[in-house]
Amino acid sequence: MISNTTDSAVTVLGLGPMGRALAGALLDAGLPTTVWNRTAGKDRELTERGAAGAPSPEAAVAASGLTLICVVDYGAVDAVLRRDAVADALKGRAVVNLTADTPDRARDTAAWAAEHGIGYLDGAIMTPATTIGTPGAAFIHSGPEELYRRHEPVLESLGGTHTYLGAEIGRAAAYDLALLDIFWTTMAGYAHALAVARAEGIGARQLAPFAAGISAFLPSIFERFAQDVDDKTFSGEINPITSAASSIAHIVHASEAHGIDAGVMRVVQDLARRVIEQGHGADGFMRITELLNAR
Amino acid sequence: MISNTTDSAVTVLGLGPMGRALAGALLDAGLPTTVWNRTAGKDRELTERGAAGAPSPEAAVAASGLTLICVVDYGAVDAVLRRDAVADALKGRAVVNLTADTPDRARDTAAWAAEHGIGYLDGAIMTPATTIGTPGAAFIHSGPEELYRRHEPVLESLGGTHTYLGAEIGRAAAYDLALLDIFWTTMAGYAHALAVARAEGIGARQLAPFAAGISAFLPSIFERFAQDVDDKTFSGEINPITSAASSIAHIVHASEAHGIDAGVMRVVQDLARRVIEQGHGADGFMRITELLNAR
Repeated sequence: MISNTTDSAVTVLGLGPMGRALAGALLDAGLPTTVWNRTAGKDRELTERGAAGAPSPEAAVAASGLTLICVVDYGAVDAVLRRDAVADALKGRAVVNLTADTPDRARDTAAWAAEHGIGYLDGAIMTPATTIGTPGAAFIHSGPEELYRRHEPVLESLGGTHTYLGAEIGRAAAYDLALLDIFWTTMAGYAHALAVARAEGIGARQLAPFAAGISAFLPSIFERFAQDVDDKTFSGEINPITSAASSIAHIVHASEAHGIDAGVMRVVQDLARRVIEQGHGADGFMRITELLNAR
Repeated sequence: MISNTTDSAVTVLGLGPMGRALAGALLDAGLPTTVWNRTAGKDRELTERGAAGAPSPEAAVAASGLTLICVVDYGAVDAVLRRDAVADALKGRAVVNLTADTPDRARDTAAWAAEHGIGYLDGAIMTPATTIGTPGAAFIHSGPEELYRRHEPVLESLGGTHTYLGAEIGRAAAYDLALLDIFWTTMAGYAHALAVARAEGIGARQLAPFAAGISAFLPSIFERFAQDVDDKTFSGEINPITSAASSIAHIVHASEAHGIDAGVMRVVQDLARRVIEQGHGADGFMRITELLNAR
């Protein structure tokens, strides 16, 4: 339990769906919570539940030892934090930046924070806003370990699991980016599959349970393929890339026969073709990582 | 239980990893099993376990009332089945084609089978060869229902779940194609994410458990997005496509900054951009299906 003192006071900057969920979880945990949003009116439900609505970002960050910021990207972070009044108010305090962006932006923001005497942790939220405050939430964090351990109890009041990835400040953003890459590519594949299915007279609700069936296999496949990539084994014994290429060709053909753009699959097909042309057709699909990392 | 009579005799054509697994499961179930493969020598382990090795496809299909064929694609199916001697031997018998290809090829093969008085079912195996003969296997089937019900007991001896999708012969291939579309797109996203992670100093084994964490969310997301697509609701309340586009832009930027081709994500980015340009930026990502199905 965190005692209800100003030591545990938290400010939340940015009240989109995720920021509101974060502030709501802090209120549920009984922490003094101050909120601010660039456009007014987003804080009403939170202030009705006991949050303090601040008139400016500098007033908001001055109210708490710890500030969480979760906005659309680091351009928006910069617009809020990189002003003299805010930097002055943050001096000697800490920021956990839960905004998603690239590792380079996280490193740049950490350098700015260091110049201004501000403690800085970079985090990412890997689950939807609806999970915040529940055991289903998942957060990753990187930055100075001492700083992380000091604020860990408050972060844990957001619910779910919190994984500390190490001192390299870009690490959380890099994980987040890689996982978003998997997620949005998968969703693009799902959208394309639903389009092809619709053209074949199959409804999305009919296909969805079978798609869910695939996801049950993914963890073991992810693990096996990770071994392939780390160890450069790329075993194609169960499924050589020539077999994947055959499936991919069927998908491209059937999709385009229905007038459905197969642009994503054509890129994948080209990668597979290049692996095969290099003489690695008996290897597994993951050998395409060697092409991608070839620079 | 299936009694061990010639009524339940089964022939397996094609002894790649999947064909061998199918024949092995039939042997385990105690069914008289005849096998044949285009190139010799693949049948040794199976004949040692009691399978009859046939010298030709026509001899193989003549040995059983039901033939399963599982080869690389329908080009290979045609090369085996569409010869007079084989068609003559199959007359009055049944074929279940478990080869993956497009719905159009399934329809074409069904027309050929009908001309030659051959019972024809088209199926697909949606799980790896290692699952065959276990509860983890999953098969889908389409074609004449009476024919399916007659051979259902033998098919069930292959293990796992068997779903009959209806009389339209292309249906199993269409489901299979859509599911392979999701699978291989996801694997391409995983490969790309591992390449980006590696460039950031993160090993594949480190990322894999987090990737597995995503897959736990997929069934509920697949279901919700399926409702969006069937009902054309495309709610962006939790995650508007502008937010997805922001993530996608980060992925493209970070990937290309490491010299890693972001071709798949660039295609996805273009689809998202077009949805936003059409004025649907507040909608969910699945609205891209409307673009894909626009013809």
